[in-house]
Amino acid sequence: MNEAAITERREQLLGAYREVRSTTEGLIEPLEIEDMVVQAMPDASPTKWHLAHTSWFFETLVLGRVTGYEPFDPRYAELFNSYYESLGEPYPRDSRGLLSRPTVSEVLDYRRHVDQGMAEVLESCGGERFEELAPIVTIGLNHEQQHQELLLMDVKQVLARNPLRPAYRKLARGSSACVPPMEWQAFEGGLVRVGNSAPGFAYDNEGPAHTVYLRPFELAPRPVTNGEYRAFIADGGYRRPELWLSDGWSLVQREGWQAPLYWETDGARWRVMTLGGLREVVAGEPVCHVSFYEADAYARWSGYRLPSEHEWEHAAGEPTSPGTLLEDGRFHPSALHAAPSPGKLAQLIGDVWEWTSSPYVAYPGYRPFEGSLGEYNGKFMANQMVLRGGSCVTPKRHVRPTYRNFYYPHQRWMFAGFRLAR
Amino acid sequence: MNEAAITERREQLLGAYREVRSTTEGLIEPLEIEDMVVQAMPDASPTKWHLAHTSWFFETLVLGRVTGYEPFDPRYAELFNSYYESLGEPYPRDSRGLLSRPTVSEVLDYRRHVDQGMAEVLESCGGERFEELAPIVTIGLNHEQQHQELLLMDVKQVLARNPLRPAYRKLARGSSACVPPMEWQAFEGGLVRVGNSAPGFAYDNEGPAHTVYLRPFELAPRPVTNGEYRAFIADGGYRRPELWLSDGWSLVQREGWQAPLYWETDGARWRVMTLGGLREVVAGEPVCHVSFYEADAYARWSGYRLPSEHEWEHAAGEPTSPGTLLEDGRFHPSALHAAPSPGKLAQLIGDVWEWTSSPYVAYPGYRPFEGSLGEYNGKFMANQMVLRGGSCVTPKRHVRPTYRNFYYPHQRWMFAGFRLAR
Amino acid sequence: MNEAAITERREQLLGAYREVRSTTEGLIEPLEIEDMVVQAMPDASPTKWHLAHTSWFFETLVLGRVTGYEPFDPRYAELFNSYYESLGEPYPRDSRGLLSRPTVSEVLDYRRHVDQGMAEVLESCGGERFEELAPIVTIGLNHEQQHQELLLMDVKQVLARNPLRPAYRKLARGSSACVPPMEWQAFEGGLVRVGNSAPGFAYDNEGPAHTVYLRPFELAPRPVTNGEYRAFIADGGYRRPELWLSDGWSLVQREGWQAPLYWETDGARWRVMTLGGLREVVAGEPVCHVSFYEADAYARWSGYRLPSEHEWEHAAGEPTSPGTLLEDGRFHPSALHAAPSPGKLAQLIGDVWEWTSSPYVAYPGYRPFEGSLGEYNGKFMANQMVLRGGSCVTPKRHVRPTYRNFYYPHQRWMFAGFRLAR
Amino acid sequence: MNEAAITERREQLLGAYREVRSTTEGLIEPLEIEDMVVQAMPDASPTKWHLAHTSWFFETLVLGRVTGYEPFDPRYAELFNSYYESLGEPYPRDSRGLLSRPTVSEVLDYRRHVDQGMAEVLESCGGERFEELAPIVTIGLNHEQQHQELLLMDVKQVLARNPLRPAYRKLARGSSACVPPMEWQAFEGGLVRVGNSAPGFAYDNEGPAHTVYLRPFELAPRPVTNGEYRAFIADGGYRRPELWLSDGWSLVQREGWQAPLYWETDGARWRVMTLGGLREVVAGEPVCHVSFYEADAYARWSGYRLPSEHEWEHAAGEPTSPGTLLEDGRFHPSALHAAPSPGKLAQLIGDVWEWTSSPYVAYPGYRPFEGSLGEYNGKFMANQMVLRGGSCVTPKRHVRPTYRNFYYPHQRWMFAGFRLAR
Repeated sequence: MNEAAITERREQLLGAYREVRSTTEGLIEPLEIEDMVVQAMPDASPTKWHLAHTSWFFETLVLGRVTGYEPFDPRYAELFNSYYESLGEPYPRDSRGLLSRPTVSEVLDYRRHVDQGMAEVLESCGGERFEELAPIVTIGLNHEQQHQELLLMDVKQVLARNPLRPAYRKLARGSSACVPPMEWQAFEGGLVRVGNSAPGFAYDNEGPAHTVYLRPFELAPRPVTNGEYRAFIADGGYRRPELWLSDGWSLVQREGWQAPLYWETDGARWRVMTLGGLREVVAGEPVCHVSFYEADAYARWSGYRLPSEHEWEHAAGEPTSPGTLLEDGRFHPSALHAAPSPGKLAQLIGDVWEWTSSPYVAYPGYRPFEGSLGEYNGKFMANQMVLRGGSCVTPKRHVRPTYRNFYYPHQRWMFAGFRLAR
Repeated sequence: MNEAAITERREQLLGAYREVRSTTEGLIEPLEIEDMVVQAMPDASPTKWHLAHTSWFFETLVLGRVTGYEPFDPRYAELFNSYYESLGEPYPRDSRGLLSRPTVSEVLDYRRHVDQGMAEVLESCGGERFEELAPIVTIGLNHEQQHQELLLMDVKQVLARNPLRPAYRKLARGSSACVPPMEWQAFEGGLVRVGNSAPGFAYDNEGPAHTVYLRPFELAPRPVTNGEYRAFIADGGYRRPELWLSDGWSLVQREGWQAPLYWETDGARWRVMTLGGLREVVAGEPVCHVSFYEADAYARWSGYRLPSEHEWEHAAGEPTSPGTLLEDGRFHPSALHAAPSPGKLAQLIGDVWEWTSSPYVAYPGYRPFEGSLGEYNGKFMANQMVLRGGSCVTPKRHVRPTYRNFYYPHQRWMFAGFRLAR
Repeated sequence: MNEAAITERREQLLGAYREVRSTTEGLIEPLEIEDMVVQAMPDASPTKWHLAHTSWFFETLVLGRVTGYEPFDPRYAELFNSYYESLGEPYPRDSRGLLSRPTVSEVLDYRRHVDQGMAEVLESCGGERFEELAPIVTIGLNHEQQHQELLLMDVKQVLARNPLRPAYRKLARGSSACVPPMEWQAFEGGLVRVGNSAPGFAYDNEGPAHTVYLRPFELAPRPVTNGEYRAFIADGGYRRPELWLSDGWSLVQREGWQAPLYWETDGARWRVMTLGGLREVVAGEPVCHVSFYEADAYARWSGYRLPSEHEWEHAAGEPTSPGTLLEDGRFHPSALHAAPSPGKLAQLIGDVWEWTSSPYVAYPGYRPFEGSLGEYNGKFMANQMVLRGGSCVTPKRHVRPTYRNFYYPHQRWMFAGFRLAR
Repeated sequence: MNEAAITERREQLLGAYREVRSTTEGLIEPLEIEDMVVQAMPDASPTKWHLAHTSWFFETLVLGRVTGYEPFDPRYAELFNSYYESLGEPYPRDSRGLLSRPTVSEVLDYRRHVDQGMAEVLESCGGERFEELAPIVTIGLNHEQQHQELLLMDVKQVLARNPLRPAYRKLARGSSACVPPMEWQAFEGGLVRVGNSAPGFAYDNEGPAHTVYLRPFELAPRPVTNGEYRAFIADGGYRRPELWLSDGWSLVQREGWQAPLYWETDGARWRVMTLGGLREVVAGEPVCHVSFYEADAYARWSGYRLPSEHEWEHAAGEPTSPGTLLEDGRFHPSALHAAPSPGKLAQLIGDVWEWTSSPYVAYPGYRPFEGSLGEYNGKFMANQMVLRGGSCVTPKRHVRPTYRNFYYPHQRWMFAGFRLAR
C-alpha cells in the first residue's frame, strides 16, 4: 500500500480513536465522583473501572507490543484485566467496587497516558506495524463502545438502587405518540444466508456467513410495549407457572419478581426508574429490562413466540425504521419519532435489544480471533441467549444486523425487550 | 375399531405395563433397605421415591380419571409429585431424602395397589375410555423406563459417596478388546429431515419432523475412550483455561475437578467407581460421567468439535453397531463385544449418552403434550444441552435415533460421554 | 485393693455397661429401618450413626488400648469418629445421612463385637489395667447415655419433618392436672459453693468446685408453661423487636419463627408434634423446644429474667419435686404427677432442660480430661449457653444438680424450656 | 440550679460537642472522596456513612424533640439509622456501600446543618429542657467517639484490601525500644467491687457496680507482642487443632487463617498493613488484629489463659503506664515510649483492646438506657466477648477502666490484642 493511503488510514483510525475515547468521557460528565466508585451488583462494574479497563485494553494489547512504551502503573495490568486468563490472573470481578484507588482523577490521568502512547504509535509506526496494530485498535474501539453502553447500564443500577432515586441527567419526556399497529410482517423463509461477510469490522462470533433453512414466518412490526406488558401483569402473568420455563419460574418465586426491573408500584400505578429519574410508565414505549424468561413467558401468554436469531437477521435484511441509539441522547427506549413507512419493520435497530429464542452458540466453522482476543467472545458460548438490534444506549456505529449480543436468561439490567413472531 | 382388536391392544398394553413394572422392581433386588432411603445430592432421588413416584404417575394421571378408584393414601398426591405445578405443590425436591416414611415395604404395597387398579381399568374399561387412557399409559411406561435409568444413576451416587465403596452387584470385568480404529465417517449434509414422524410412541420434544440444512461433516466411529481422555488429563487438560468455556472453567476451579466423576487416583493409577464397585480404569471403554464442559474442553484440545444433535441424528439414520443397553446387564459402558462392520458407526446407541453441541430448545412448530403432561418436557427448554443415543442403563425399547435427552452442562452423574465431529 | 473388691467392681461396671447398652437398643425397637438412616438436619444424626458411634467410643478409647483386639472394620475408625481431631479426620458431620452402609444390621453386629470385646477385657484384665480402663469405661457409659437422649431428639426431627407425621410410639395423654401456683422461692445468696466435688462420676466441665458471690434472688417454682407461652405469642411476642436480643431478632425474621419448634396452627388452635405424634398443646405442660432467644424474649416480656447457672445450681441444693425422666417412659414434658410439697421447687430435675443466662465457659481452674477425651467438653466453651436439669428423655442416672448441658442459643431440637428468676 | 451554672454547663457541653465533631472531620482530611464511599465488608461502613450517621444520631434523638427544627432531608431518617428498630426500618447494613448519594459534600452540609441546629438548641433552650437533652447529647458525643475509632478501622479495611496498599497517612516508624520484661503481677482477689459507680458519663452496660468473688490471680505486665506471637505461628499454632476452640478451628480451616489480619508473608519475613501502609512486623509491638479464637489458642499454647473482665478491671484499679491513644497520633499499636515504673502494669489503657475470657452479658441488675437508647448496648448481649482498655485509635476521653467493649469472637478488624493471666 502506498504511503498516502497509509497516512489517510492512520488519520482515520486516530480520528476514530479520539472520537470514541472522548465520547466515553462525555458520558461521565453528569456524574459525581461517588457515583463512579460503586459496584451495585457483581454483574455490574464501577464507572471508574470502565474508564480504566478500556484503557487497559489498549495498553495491554496494543502498546504492550511497542518497544519503549512505559506502562502508567504496572500493577494495573492485573487490576484492570476483566477476564483474560491468558493475560494473568484478573482481579476478582465481584470486588471491583472495593477499590477506592486509583481515584477517578488518577484513572483519567491513566487515560491521558494511554491516549498519548496511542497517538505516538499510530502516527509514527511503520506500515507493517500499522497493519498489525490497526485491526486490534479497531477491536479496542468496538470494545470501548460496548463499555459505553455497559457504563450507562451500570450507572443506572447504582442510581436505581439508591432510595433517593437520583437522576443521571434530565431527559426528554416520553410519549406514546407513534406506535405502529400490530400488523404482522410475513417472510417466506427457505434457504437463506446469515452471518457477516461484509467488509469492515465485525466480531468473530458473527461469522462465518452460512446457509440456514427457515420455515415461513411472520414478525411483529415493533417490540412489545409497556401497555401490552401491563396487561400480562394484570392477567396474573407473574403468578401462573404454566406460562414459564421451569428455571424462570424458580427465579420468579425466589426473587419475588412482579414486574420488569426498575418498575415499582404503589398499588395504583406503575412508575419506572430511568436515567432521568423516576417517572410514569408510558404505555407506548417498548417494554425494557425484562429477562429472557419474562419475554418467553409473555410470548407463551400471548399465544405467539420469540423469533430465532436467524429469522430476526433475515428480516433485518430489509429496510427498517430505526429506533433511537446513544447519539440520539434519549437514554431511554422511546416510541418512534415518526410513523414508519407501511410494511417496514420498526425499531429492529435501536431502543431495546430484542431477546431471540436462540441460545448463543458458535456458527458452523466459527474461528475465534487470534491470541488473547480469542477469549473475547468464544468462551461465553454456553448458557446465554442471543439478543439483537441495539438499544437506546448503543452507539450508532456499533450495531448492525449481524451483531450478536448475548446475556444469561435471568439478566435484566441491560436495555432488553423483545418482539413477537409466529 | 372392533372388539377383538381392542382386546388385543388391551392385552398388549397390560403386558407391557407388567413387564415395565416388574423390570423396575427387579432393579432393587440387590439393594438393602438402607440404600433405598438415601438422597445423595439434590439432583438425585432415593430409590424409594422412584418406586413411589412412578406409581403416583399412573395413579394421578390414569386412575385419577376413573370413577371409583380409591387412592392408596391421599397424602401421596403431594408427596410423590415431582414437578407438576398444575397438579398441586410438589414436596421439595431436595428434601426427598428426609422422608423415612412411607417405608420401602409400604411403597411396594402402594405399587401393588396401583397395579391392581391399572389391571382392572385396562381390562374392563370401555373402548372409548381405552382410547383416551392408552396414550397416557404409554407415556407412563416410558416415564417409568426413564426412572429405571435414574434409579441406577442415583443408586450409583449413593454407593460411590460412601467411603466403604459398596457394589450394587457383581459385574462382568471390563476389557478393551474391541475398540474400532479412529476412522472418520463422512456425511454430505445438505437439506435433511430430522425429528420424529414414525408411528409408535415418541416424546413431544422429538417433533415435529422438519428440515434443516447441514454442511458436510465427519463423525468419529465411536465415543472417546478412557485411554484418550487420560491423555487429555495428562496434558494438563484440567489446568488450562484456554481449553474451557468460561462457565466451565469457573466450575473446574470451584469444584476442584481433575477427572471425570467417579474417577480417583492414588497418584499412580486411576480407578473408577462402578455399579460393580471400585475397579481399574479400562483404556478401551468409552469415557463416562463427564460434563458438557469436559466434553467440550476435550474436543477443543483434540482440535475437533462435538457434533450438533442434527448431525448426530442424521448419521444415526444409517445402520450402526449398537453398544450395550440395560437388558445386556453390564451396567457399565463397555468396549464393543465384537468388531463392527467396516464403515459402520459403533455405539451410537448404547453404552454412553453422547453430549452434542446443541442447546435443548423447541423444534419449529413444537406442541407440548396436552394438559398436565405439557409440563413433561417443554418447560425445561432452557440452559440444558441435548444428549443422544442411550447408555448401558437405558432400556432397549426406550431409546431411538430421534430421542432427545437433556441435562445441564455441569451435570455428570448420568452415564454421559461424547463423540467427536469435524 | 484386694481381689474381691476388684471383682465386685468388675461386676458392677460390666453390669452398668450391659444395662446402658441394652437401654440404647431398647430405644430403637419402635423404629423402622428407614427411620434409622435419615439425618434430618446437620445438627442431628441418624439413629444408625448413634448406635455405631457409641460403640466406636468403646472400641477406640478402651479396646484400642488392649493387645489382641481385632477391630470389627478398621474403616469405622474414621467413619464413626464424631469430632476428635486427635483421633484422625472425622467423616463430615453433615453427611452422616448419606451413608446407607453399614446397614442397621451390620451396625448391630458391630455392637455385638464391641460388647464381646468389652466383656472379655473387663472380666479378665489385670487390676492395674482395670484401674486405667474403668474411668474411661465410665465416661463411655455417660457418653452413651447422652446419645440415648440425642437419638430420641434426632428421631423426633425425622418424624416431625415428615408430612405424614408418624409417631415414634403410642404415648400417654398429657394433662394439666398439677401445675404449682406461681409462688416465687427466695434465696439469700452471698458466698456460695458451686461445681462438683462429690465422689462418683462427673464431667470435667462441672469442676472444680469453687466459690461465687450471689446477690439475693428468687426463682419461679416451676418452668414456664405452654399456656403462659401462648399468651406471649398472642401478645405479639414474635413481632416485637424490643423484646429480643439482636441476633435473636435477625433469626426470628430470617426463619419466620412464630412459635416453638414443632408447634403448628391452623389459625384456630395450636398443635404440637411429639414422639407420640401430633396432638393438642396442653396448657399446663412446660413449654419445650424453644431457643435461648425465645426464653430470653419471654423473660423480658414477662418483666423477669432467666436465672444464672450458679443461681440455678444453688437452688438445686435444696430438696425438689422431680419431673419425669427417660425411665418414666413419657417421652414428653409433663405437668407434675402429684402436687409438690409446699416450698419445694418443682421439676428442676426432669421434663425440660432449663436455659440459664450463663454462657458456657470454663470454671476457674478448669482442667480437661486427659488425652483425646480432653476434646469432650472443653473445646466447645464458646458461643453456647448453659442449660440445667435434664429432660423427659434424659436417663435418671445421668443428670445431677452440677450437670452442665450446653447448646447454641439458636438451637431448638433438644427438649429445652426455661424457668424465670428475679 | 442557678443560671450561671447552667450557662457554664451549656458552654462546656457545646465546647465538647464542637471538639468531638471537629475531631471526626479532622480524621477524613487524608482521605480521597473515593475512599469514603467504599464498604469493604458487611461489618464495616463507608466513611461517608459514619459522618452521616453520627449526625443522624443528634438529629433524631436530640433535634427531633425540638419544635421548629427542620430536618436536612427527611429521607435520611431511614437511610442513616444503624440498628434502632424503634426508630423505623434501618437501611440494610450490608448495602451501605451501594449508596453513592448523598455525596461526601452533601453529607458535610448535613453535618453543618445539624451542628447549627445543635448550637441553637444548646445555647437557647430552657433549663429544664437542657437537663433533659444534656445526657442524650453526652451519649451522642460518646457515640461519635466510638465512630471515630470505627471510621479508622473501616478505612484501614478499605486500604488494606486494595492491591495497591495505599497509606492513610505517613506514620512514625515503629520500634521495639521499650518492652517490659515478662514479670507477672499478683492480685489477691477475694470479694471485689466491679462496674461503674463514678460520677460522669458511663454506658449503661458498665453498671450497676456490684460485688464479685475472685480467686487470687496474676496478670502479665503487658500485652503479648508480635515477636511472641510469631513463635506461636512458627510452632504450628495455626495447624494444631488441639490448641483451638472447636468453632475457632472450623474458622481457621474455612478461612485459611495463618496469621493475624493484615499480616502477609513472602515466605521469608512478615509484613503488616498499617494506616501508614505496608511495613515490617516489629517484634516488640503488641500483636493486633487477632480474633478471640487466636488469643485463646495462643493462651492455651503458652500454658496460661486470658483474664476475665473482672480480673482485668480489678487490676486496672491500680495505677498503670498507659499506652498510646488516638490523640497520640500514632494510629498503630506501639511499644511503650518509656520504661514503666516497676510493678506497674503497662498498656492496660491504650494500644490494643484486650480480649478477656468473659462473654458479654448483663451485670446483675442491669438497666438499659431509657427509650430508643435502650437498644444501644443491651440487645447485643449474646455471642460476643468483652474487650477492655482502648486502643491506639480510641479517643483518650472515651475509655476508662470500667469500659466494656464487645465483639464477636471471630472478628479481627478492630485493634484487638490480648494479655495473659494465670
